Amino acid sequence: MLISLEGLEGCGKSTQQKRILDYLERRGMAARGFVDPGRTPLGEAIREILLSPESSLGDLSELFLFAVARRQLIRECIRPALARGEVVVLDRYYDSTTAYQGFGRGIDMTLVEEIHREVVGPTRPELTLIFDVDPEVGLGRTRGKHKPNATNGQLDRIEASGLDFLRRVREGYLAIAAAEPERCVVIPVVGDEDEVFARVQPVLSRRLDK
Amino acid sequence: MLISLEGLEGCGKSTQQKRILDYLERRGMAARGFVDPGRTPLGEAIREILLSPESSLGDLSELFLFAVARRQLIRECIRPALARGEVVVLDRYYDSTTAYQGFGRGIDMTLVEEIHREVVGPTRPELTLIFDVDPEVGLGRTRGKHKPNATNGQLDRIEASGLDFLRRVREGYLAIAAAEPERCVVIPVVGDEDEVFARVQPVLSRRLDK
Repeated sequence: MLISLEGLEGCGKSTQQKRILDYLERRGMAARGFVDPGRTPLGEAIREILLSPESSLGDLSELFLFAVARRQLIRECIRPALARGEVVVLDRYYDSTTAYQGFGRGIDMTLVEEIHREVVGPTRPELTLIFDVDPEVGLGRTRGKHKPNATNGQLDRIEASGLDFLRRVREGYLAIAAAEPERCVVIPVVGDEDEVFARVQPVLSRRLDK
Repeated sequence: MLISLEGLEGCGKSTQQKRILDYLERRGMAARGFVDPGRTPLGEAIREILLSPESSLGDLSELFLFAVARRQLIRECIRPALARGEVVVLDRYYDSTTAYQGFGRGIDMTLVEEIHREVVGPTRPELTLIFDVDPEVGLGRTRGKHKPNATNGQLDRIEASGLDFLRRVREGYLAIAAAEPERCVVIPVVGDEDEVFARVQPVLSRRLDK
């Protein structure tokens, strides 16, 4: 079984990934978490290119690099884990590309879908949890994490211009959820991590009982 | 004006690129040569990943990495040179991807074309010279050049995928030439570099006179 977790930065995905892995193990299942773009050797090389502030990467190049990293993660980590019978829980997967590069950056959706078809193939999640957070709240949380000394006042210029982008990404996620209601469940990020997990757990247990 | 040179390894593209640049300069034109994947900082990082024999790159990942390197080359080198009024002569361009990844590796041609459309956009060559060499002859020349001391030394990852692959690539090039006779001219690689250039030069001068 393959589960993916999606949402804006600061939505609490990584925390919920740990909670879900714990929960699955308590239910006696072998479970394994990965992050996409992944920590394969190639993934690391690509992550470095993606995050380097010098490389003036275009949107398309970003799209292709994410595709390469994902492809390797699928081959080297996800498929082998699934083949061993483990439940795989992913922190981000191809919906991130659809939301950020497609909806956010406006890259041609035909190309995005075509790449998913080739890269992901049949390795699609049975369940995708979309952690829905207000972009300003998410941004605030990320800032809190990365810049503990920042007064929680105004967003800086770059962050503010990022807000419109993040709003488009959020709309993208909600559009994905609306288009694939069987696979996607939207989890409102309101309250602390226990409250959020209290929304996740019944969704999980219902799926596992099926 | 944009000219691309294509063909299998060992077909003499790079030598002919120099000859063509000399010829254009003798005719009083500003001319500029580039190699794709290019020598941009990002291109170098990607070239390293592509040629490393350790990285078990899938065919798709190869396709995407070439696309990223090409995109940067177009943005950082080709378009600025064309904008300055220079004639640009490319050692490989997107036909290499169609021939190697599409025809050679069998990657879905719709995806290949879609990527060209997005990555290359309107920056298409007016003239493409396809240097047609027998795969065995080409391979022999390459090994002689790069590894003069290698007796049965290892082929690199791309060489190792072998002759059958190169035969499909050659067929691919000939299919491209057949599909776009206005743009593509096949130059048989027979004889020494002077003899080959004697076939190139009239093609060039006819195009330049137009």
